[in-house]
Amino acid sequence: MSLNNKIALVDLAEYAGGTVDGDGSVIINGIAPIEKAASGQISFIANDRYKKFIETTKASALVLAPHIDSKGIPCIRIKNPYLAFAKLIDLFYPDERIVDDGIDTSSVIHKSAQIEPSAGIGPFCHVSKGAQIGKETQLISSVFIGRDAVIGGNCIFYPGVKILDGTKIGNNVIIHSSTVIGSDGFGYAKSETGLKKIKQVGWVEIDDDVEIGSNVSVDRGALGPTRIGKGTKIDNLVQIAHNVEIGQHSIIVAQVGISGSTKIGNGVILAGQVGVVGHIELGDGVMVGAQSGVKNTIPAGKQIFGSPARDKIAAMRIEAALNRLPELLREFNKLKKRFEE
Amino acid sequence: MSLNNKIALVDLAEYAGGTVDGDGSVIINGIAPIEKAASGQISFIANDRYKKFIETTKASALVLAPHIDSKGIPCIRIKNPYLAFAKLIDLFYPDERIVDDGIDTSSVIHKSAQIEPSAGIGPFCHVSKGAQIGKETQLISSVFIGRDAVIGGNCIFYPGVKILDGTKIGNNVIIHSSTVIGSDGFGYAKSETGLKKIKQVGWVEIDDDVEIGSNVSVDRGALGPTRIGKGTKIDNLVQIAHNVEIGQHSIIVAQVGISGSTKIGNGVILAGQVGVVGHIELGDGVMVGAQSGVKNTIPAGKQIFGSPARDKIAAMRIEAALNRLPELLREFNKLKKRFEE
Amino acid sequence: MSLNNKIALVDLAEYAGGTVDGDGSVIINGIAPIEKAASGQISFIANDRYKKFIETTKASALVLAPHIDSKGIPCIRIKNPYLAFAKLIDLFYPDERIVDDGIDTSSVIHKSAQIEPSAGIGPFCHVSKGAQIGKETQLISSVFIGRDAVIGGNCIFYPGVKILDGTKIGNNVIIHSSTVIGSDGFGYAKSETGLKKIKQVGWVEIDDDVEIGSNVSVDRGALGPTRIGKGTKIDNLVQIAHNVEIGQHSIIVAQVGISGSTKIGNGVILAGQVGVVGHIELGDGVMVGAQSGVKNTIPAGKQIFGSPARDKIAAMRIEAALNRLPELLREFNKLKKRFEE
Repeated sequence: MSLNNKIALVDLAEYAGGTVDGDGSVIINGIAPIEKAASGQISFIANDRYKKFIETTKASALVLAPHIDSKGIPCIRIKNPYLAFAKLIDLFYPDERIVDDGIDTSSVIHKSAQIEPSAGIGPFCHVSKGAQIGKETQLISSVFIGRDAVIGGNCIFYPGVKILDGTKIGNNVIIHSSTVIGSDGFGYAKSETGLKKIKQVGWVEIDDDVEIGSNVSVDRGALGPTRIGKGTKIDNLVQIAHNVEIGQHSIIVAQVGISGSTKIGNGVILAGQVGVVGHIELGDGVMVGAQSGVKNTIPAGKQIFGSPARDKIAAMRIEAALNRLPELLREFNKLKKRFEE
Repeated sequence: MSLNNKIALVDLAEYAGGTVDGDGSVIINGIAPIEKAASGQISFIANDRYKKFIETTKASALVLAPHIDSKGIPCIRIKNPYLAFAKLIDLFYPDERIVDDGIDTSSVIHKSAQIEPSAGIGPFCHVSKGAQIGKETQLISSVFIGRDAVIGGNCIFYPGVKILDGTKIGNNVIIHSSTVIGSDGFGYAKSETGLKKIKQVGWVEIDDDVEIGSNVSVDRGALGPTRIGKGTKIDNLVQIAHNVEIGQHSIIVAQVGISGSTKIGNGVILAGQVGVVGHIELGDGVMVGAQSGVKNTIPAGKQIFGSPARDKIAAMRIEAALNRLPELLREFNKLKKRFEE
Repeated sequence: MSLNNKIALVDLAEYAGGTVDGDGSVIINGIAPIEKAASGQISFIANDRYKKFIETTKASALVLAPHIDSKGIPCIRIKNPYLAFAKLIDLFYPDERIVDDGIDTSSVIHKSAQIEPSAGIGPFCHVSKGAQIGKETQLISSVFIGRDAVIGGNCIFYPGVKILDGTKIGNNVIIHSSTVIGSDGFGYAKSETGLKKIKQVGWVEIDDDVEIGSNVSVDRGALGPTRIGKGTKIDNLVQIAHNVEIGQHSIIVAQVGISGSTKIGNGVILAGQVGVVGHIELGDGVMVGAQSGVKNTIPAGKQIFGSPARDKIAAMRIEAALNRLPELLREFNKLKKRFEE
């Protein structure tokens, strides 16, 4: 992944929508993290932990928020340096098509499947009866598309993705390797002879601009859909149970589990390893701290954490108090003894 | 998945083993969740949270426990509405064979493998030396069957399932996509040059009627088997370590991890994200709450939760007491001060 | 997996580097766990929980630490019985090559890929443009190797492993089924139109002698590498985020999640289901108890547990004190009342 681009800082600033602070004529030929950047490269600070590296970085330019001291390094000043950085990466690493249009001869495509000519189907893909695949969508390798699944345009499905029957996926959706969309939900009724399977006859709907990490499981609805809303991003090894509905632009970090029929609003953030029980609702903008266990419906905008999850401030107070609990026990016993004497 | 069936409620009641309450002649053409059901459809209540929807549902009939007020909607009365609902779904959505009998020409089958003629082997399956596959078992796509693995009849293995060497699987077993049965257990001995691998030479045995979700890992025994008993159901993203033994009709919810050589009894329920350490036993009927961490052997019938898991009632008391801990600290300090004055 | 070897105990002792205690002429034909061993087999004790079985075992010989009473059973005395046991298993179950050298005709290999003639490429493997595969490396089945990936010698990649573009892997690396190396890291910048993807243009580097379990996700760096050091062992269903660096000979147990840019030292042990936040460091030899949540940099050698993780002794005191918290509340209220009377 070599960088052939050489661009003046002033041009980068214009591209990113920021203003130059310092020498705008410096030539930039690449992008790197601040602690590893070499001369000629541009870097950025999005997390205050990394500010200390401004003193020692070899970067020839930085992308910085207005208030941060650049220590004389030429920089692009911008309100949201992380977003500017994202744009610069796109510039230095332009998109390449991974699979050319057309269908690899090793793939197995049902005769009734409808695949746009501009789509690219790599080796060992299996596209089932009645499935549809949109324009410029790329199935890289060993991708399974089930019966009557409808896949939009400009999607990328990485090697080993499995899309089960009846799934509906919008445009610009990225799904990483070994992820499974549409496995059966986990539903059984007790009977005298054991656990009777509730046949899972629903499906999964994924809206535009969703990205889903690797080794994720999204179960089909028992009846009706499991839904993931527009622009929502899901990290690796996440469990989405049957009939869950997730709103738009939410962030679901790695190893989260969401139980059946729960509704997650828009702009929600679930940090890593969070568990959410079934049949509850998390309102828009709810933020849940890592490893929390959410057992109850949470109103919009609340920040919670802990297992069980509590209001964030209450949980922090309990956490601090716990550090003093062993001493409290000792002191209480002393006081009680003195009182009783 | 259209429903062509049209059946009178009285006939549905007989099929499900319940009795009609109200107009048994109403014609039912489908099945749906209560809050989404349309006229002509039947729905059910299995969870009290959904009782409120009886007032507003458009369903033409309901499946209800005897004590629930039907608000005049014709219904099937039955003790176990969830089980009846499971039977009705089977009626409206009859099983279809996914892969026809025979072997897809793209698949690679070792000449010594024994595959029943009624089995169906879809594209890109790889069946290794000495493997056996029983009657009417379906390998949908990209399924790997290792050396000398023995698979029973009427199983369904979804796309991307990997069954490693020597695995023994009974009849009517369902395994969902990207699940791995028989990966090596995690065993190393410290040596002067680093961690020496303990070669994992055991295998996995899975009894009849087991269902395993997607992206599950079941490790082979170090020596001897890892075992999953008849009728046990395992959700997605679960970790079963080497030499674990799980009894019959147990329920292992998503993202649970069970460490090596632990024995889980019959009818055990492990809720989501539970962790169980190695070399312990959980007796029959033990129930473990979500996100709990089980460190000790638990006698049959006990309900536990928390990390570390405690007796359920004790854990609930601690949880409630924690809410008052910060105030307790303040009040204690006040009291101590007053006492010392 | 039958054992044809028949070896005198005295010879086994020499092979394992221990000394015979008792009759060295006893003939051993196999190896088994102590509670299941039959006559003619050798077993071992590495965990004190299993000492009780010495009284009842049918094993003809044991591998024991010097201080353990053998109850008259002939044994190999050795300081590290577990390591000796590992060597004996290797003796009774010698390595077999799984895939013969050469490339299965069903596989798709880009013409620019360089594959050593002694490597074995099983069915349905896809080796992309510019990839290199070293001597005697085995890709068992349905393995994907991305563009410009460099794989060393003597590696085993189990069915369904996906190695994405640009990954660098050393020698003697074992990766289990459905594991994904090099999926995109989880990085987005907020923008006015939603979450803008930070293009992940880094890669993954895995050093010699690493073993990675099944269904693991290792993300590529955002910029630069994600690194796993020599001899480190990773269990199933683990999440390694972008730009994580793990040192040498560390042990990462199942379902652990490590967030972005965190550095894990040498000889670190993270027990099952641990979560580690991003941008921190865990020093050499740190040990973290199961289900812990690590939020801060931890100095070398520390043992911590809990969520949030605390010093191990402090965490144990809090855990013990919690058992008495409900009673403390009651007693405090009593005392306060008496004081106020």
